[in-house]
Amino acid sequence: MPFNRRWRRPTFSEIKVTDSFWSTRQQTLVRVTLPTQFSQLESTGRLENFRRVIDGEHGKFSGFWFNDSDVYKWLEAVAYGLAIEDSPELRSKADIAIDLIARTQRPDGYLNTYIQYEKPDMAWKNLSMMHEMYCGGHLLEAAAAWHDALGDNRLLNVAVKFADHVMSIFGPDRRLGYCGHEEFEYGLIRLARATGDTKYREFARWQVDTRGSRPSPFEPELTDEVALSMHRGQVGQCLRDGAYNGEYLQDHAPVREHTSVVGHAVRAMYLYMAATDLADGEKDEAMESALRRCWDSLTKRRMYVTAGIGPSGDNEGFTNDFDLPNGTAYAETCAAIGLIFWGQLLLEQTGESDFADIVERSLYNGTLSGISISGDHYFYDNPLESRGQHERTPWFPCACCPPNIARLLGTIGQLAVGIGDDTIAIHLPIGMTVQTPLATIEVSGNYPWESEVTIAVTPRTLEPFGLAIRIPDWADELGLELEVADEPADYQDGYAVYHRVWSPGDVIKVDFGTEPKWIEANPAILDDLGRVALSYGPMIYCAESTDNGFLPQRAAVLTEQEVAIAYDASLLGGVTTITVPAIVDQDAFPDGLYADLGTITLQERDLKFIPYYAWNNRGKSSMQVWLRRA
Amino acid sequence: MPFNRRWRRPTFSEIKVTDSFWSTRQQTLVRVTLPTQFSQLESTGRLENFRRVIDGEHGKFSGFWFNDSDVYKWLEAVAYGLAIEDSPELRSKADIAIDLIARTQRPDGYLNTYIQYEKPDMAWKNLSMMHEMYCGGHLLEAAAAWHDALGDNRLLNVAVKFADHVMSIFGPDRRLGYCGHEEFEYGLIRLARATGDTKYREFARWQVDTRGSRPSPFEPELTDEVALSMHRGQVGQCLRDGAYNGEYLQDHAPVREHTSVVGHAVRAMYLYMAATDLADGEKDEAMESALRRCWDSLTKRRMYVTAGIGPSGDNEGFTNDFDLPNGTAYAETCAAIGLIFWGQLLLEQTGESDFADIVERSLYNGTLSGISISGDHYFYDNPLESRGQHERTPWFPCACCPPNIARLLGTIGQLAVGIGDDTIAIHLPIGMTVQTPLATIEVSGNYPWESEVTIAVTPRTLEPFGLAIRIPDWADELGLELEVADEPADYQDGYAVYHRVWSPGDVIKVDFGTEPKWIEANPAILDDLGRVALSYGPMIYCAESTDNGFLPQRAAVLTEQEVAIAYDASLLGGVTTITVPAIVDQDAFPDGLYADLGTITLQERDLKFIPYYAWNNRGKSSMQVWLRRA
Repeated sequence: MPFNRRWRRPTFSEIKVTDSFWSTRQQTLVRVTLPTQFSQLESTGRLENFRRVIDGEHGKFSGFWFNDSDVYKWLEAVAYGLAIEDSPELRSKADIAIDLIARTQRPDGYLNTYIQYEKPDMAWKNLSMMHEMYCGGHLLEAAAAWHDALGDNRLLNVAVKFADHVMSIFGPDRRLGYCGHEEFEYGLIRLARATGDTKYREFARWQVDTRGSRPSPFEPELTDEVALSMHRGQVGQCLRDGAYNGEYLQDHAPVREHTSVVGHAVRAMYLYMAATDLADGEKDEAMESALRRCWDSLTKRRMYVTAGIGPSGDNEGFTNDFDLPNGTAYAETCAAIGLIFWGQLLLEQTGESDFADIVERSLYNGTLSGISISGDHYFYDNPLESRGQHERTPWFPCACCPPNIARLLGTIGQLAVGIGDDTIAIHLPIGMTVQTPLATIEVSGNYPWESEVTIAVTPRTLEPFGLAIRIPDWADELGLELEVADEPADYQDGYAVYHRVWSPGDVIKVDFGTEPKWIEANPAILDDLGRVALSYGPMIYCAESTDNGFLPQRAAVLTEQEVAIAYDASLLGGVTTITVPAIVDQDAFPDGLYADLGTITLQERDLKFIPYYAWNNRGKSSMQVWLRRA
Repeated sequence: MPFNRRWRRPTFSEIKVTDSFWSTRQQTLVRVTLPTQFSQLESTGRLENFRRVIDGEHGKFSGFWFNDSDVYKWLEAVAYGLAIEDSPELRSKADIAIDLIARTQRPDGYLNTYIQYEKPDMAWKNLSMMHEMYCGGHLLEAAAAWHDALGDNRLLNVAVKFADHVMSIFGPDRRLGYCGHEEFEYGLIRLARATGDTKYREFARWQVDTRGSRPSPFEPELTDEVALSMHRGQVGQCLRDGAYNGEYLQDHAPVREHTSVVGHAVRAMYLYMAATDLADGEKDEAMESALRRCWDSLTKRRMYVTAGIGPSGDNEGFTNDFDLPNGTAYAETCAAIGLIFWGQLLLEQTGESDFADIVERSLYNGTLSGISISGDHYFYDNPLESRGQHERTPWFPCACCPPNIARLLGTIGQLAVGIGDDTIAIHLPIGMTVQTPLATIEVSGNYPWESEVTIAVTPRTLEPFGLAIRIPDWADELGLELEVADEPADYQDGYAVYHRVWSPGDVIKVDFGTEPKWIEANPAILDDLGRVALSYGPMIYCAESTDNGFLPQRAAVLTEQEVAIAYDASLLGGVTTITVPAIVDQDAFPDGLYADLGTITLQERDLKFIPYYAWNNRGKSSMQVWLRRA
């Protein structure tokens, strides 16, 4: 399908998440995650940086030079949080931040506490490394969020001044420039939508279209001494064999010529988000092909089974096709979130459910693993194996992930539903109430633990309209029942569509037929050879030593035998566990390292699995997603 | 057995290696390895550094600050090479180096081109990082080698002046000091033996005994700005949680209190070599216990099946018990050589064959893999798995390994035989002629490819004397035959001993019963779970993609089935290959990454193995030692 926006996202007034799985998490977001993150912003000096600039101070900045972005992302998440559940305390914390931001902005619109405090002469001098537009992009997204979710325009005024300032320096008739870390482009798109002023969208288009120019505007910056002293490692990432290459920051070629996802994973996702939104209705075949090529590269050759992406910590990003080591997987939380953001935009442009399959896989696995069940500890990297060296922490020196997952959790409802002209699509069958001019739709069930979902439709019109229900890729058997009549569904782009006149009380009962399923990996992934992973509905499972009396690495699962499924409300906030028979070595190897084959004695033991997202909530442990198959 | 030297090494006049396996390599050593290494010493400026100092120049040193040691190690190897096969060309190259060294030495005995050229004020200012004594130790070993093997004392004069200079500054009544990189201690021991002056041995003892002092002499050096600017990474290695720890350089505790091998692997080996030699006849139970504890820690919990040691590149050394990853194995060639050096000294002190088993395992595997069959390409790290990223090179910026393996290859004969008062021990049953006052002994066979060895004894005395033949740990069945009579052997410390009156023409025929054998690893080595390795005599085998039409990673071996053994004289300088049936996936996985279990289709294929040491002699390849077991 050509890119032509098929679904728009529901507003906060159109959707209310009532899901047993997600509404708990959204409550935790407002009551735990966002308040504790504010404490971190204060205690780590991220807000103090604004106060110092306001006070006219200059000196040596502490922390990373892009720390402003954490404040903006937190504010964006607060907007969503307050739209879900108002909290005067949280609102007053946000007011502090918004006030500081507005007062820090220079009269000309410039805003970046690192530059203003430590290196005023460096403003716009080094776009590849300094992240000024990156921070600004998050300011724009926060501003749009406060406008969209709360009707509050305080940040929007700051954002407009900032964007206008940038556009007074850069542009088609001015200086060529785009940011080393993409994000500003998508912020501009959201600013255009919030203000109704399309010039911001067109500026974003110019930045996306000029990226990959030769000579690159980044090349002369790489010899800049200030940047070198700060960012030698990043400068090195931009080179190959000593010459500028630019893959690290997706500046290796114009986007329309990209053939695979390369470089820093989060940056790539943010670039393609903007490019996907901008392609809407443009009939830009070169761009659509490039985006589909890169999506295929990503999801068919470079993605973990958890939908974690970017295996390497060296470049925080991509390496080679099928290079997906488990224990050293970087799979940054932000990258998995970026995959959701991009995938959702592709879904909304094309209406093809394949994109939603990946979004859902990331949501319940590689993204959700990034935050603890308590809502105040985080993973930056999300490995698929641990030997006890990993542990969640309350914050990071580079703290991009915590506020990023906060803004994601605040918009679960926006991912679940798509609204078209005469159709409503259920992308994710979570518990929710959707209210549109066409109808009120109540989705209820106990997803993802149970596979039966009930969709109750109360029409507001006598005209026919459509209800499209996504059939997930993992659903083997589908037991769709329409209770009011024996009407068959149409199947289109992976959705079961009922287009009819609806009556109050019409109910659709869906059963996705969730069963535990063993998965194997393409043998080109050398790290997964001889191994299997266990899935249950949209979730990938893992075995953690905490639940078993032995390291999961020492088990080989018996995949032909029956497994035991049990929901345990008291475990990890309530999870379905799956117990599998396995062959485990007995602890009776002789003193020493190596012996003749047959020395190891084996026994059958039960191996309990939990959802991958829930691991490491009970302290350090050994964990494995890909188990050896006996 | 208490440490009390049981065997001394044969001199070059007492042994001539005639082995089909090793004499080819010794010929290559003299004709290829040592001449090409001289070219590298010249082209990389290592000899030029001496000329610059002689010319009175000062400036910015190029290369590593310890590059002098490469010249010394090369000279040591040349001494052995010339003793094996004289070469006027090689001798004249050595003369150039010896002359430069003598002329570079300061009148007071100091010698270090880095310090003399770039940082004269830094002499003896930073023992932890500057490696002055480390370089000096290799000078002393080279000097002893030229004296011992060739009767040439030119370097010995330099070495004596250097050692005397050190002892004028450091010592029990002077400054406390020992080197961050051990080596000087063992050099002093060899100098004492070559000169007959025991003061050098006692100084070595003082350095070994004071190592691990608190406060450590290294602690104040770690804040030295020059050292920090050069060695920040190494300084970091010496700390734990910000405080001095010293494990990296074995300065964490006095040697007698060491409980396991820690830190930089080569440094640890060199320290324990000196400590083992010094313990000779001392009845120093605390030292003997510590050395046995560390040896057990090393060989029972921290050694690869190839006898490679030191799994981590971060510290070029040890991590935790059973942490032995295959693909990222550092297993530095120098560390494997150090293991041979230390193990041989332990063997000679105790007479226990267990030490020889490890020496032999390292020799035919983790050490020999460090040099190409052509004799002019090297591995620094010796991984047990490759996905094509590894490749031998002719030299390294830090070139410790090439001359180290050269000096090892020059002394194979010295490892093979031990000479006692009234017994001769065959540690390694390689082809050789041993001539001692007791007898001439000719060992012949085609070891390690064939397991039959013939030992012909021509006595020079009518008195009884002993012949001790080591029974390797890998030998399952032993078919010892004594042709002159049906005398049974005594078995002692792992040796079959015949103590008798010998007649000319007496021959012992030995069959070690070599068969391919599957090995499994202690399940505590998580990386080897579900895997097997293949051994044949003293050799560990590997599967390389070059010999097979597929990556060895994609194969799972059928260990219950028959294997095919074949000697191929045209392959890799002549090797015995072993072909094994295996299950390999067919290249027919659908487009994408993950699918339901059962998607992969399998077929039986032959998988050819070659000796591990011979891998990567035909360009980049995928290789695996630990194969999945079907």
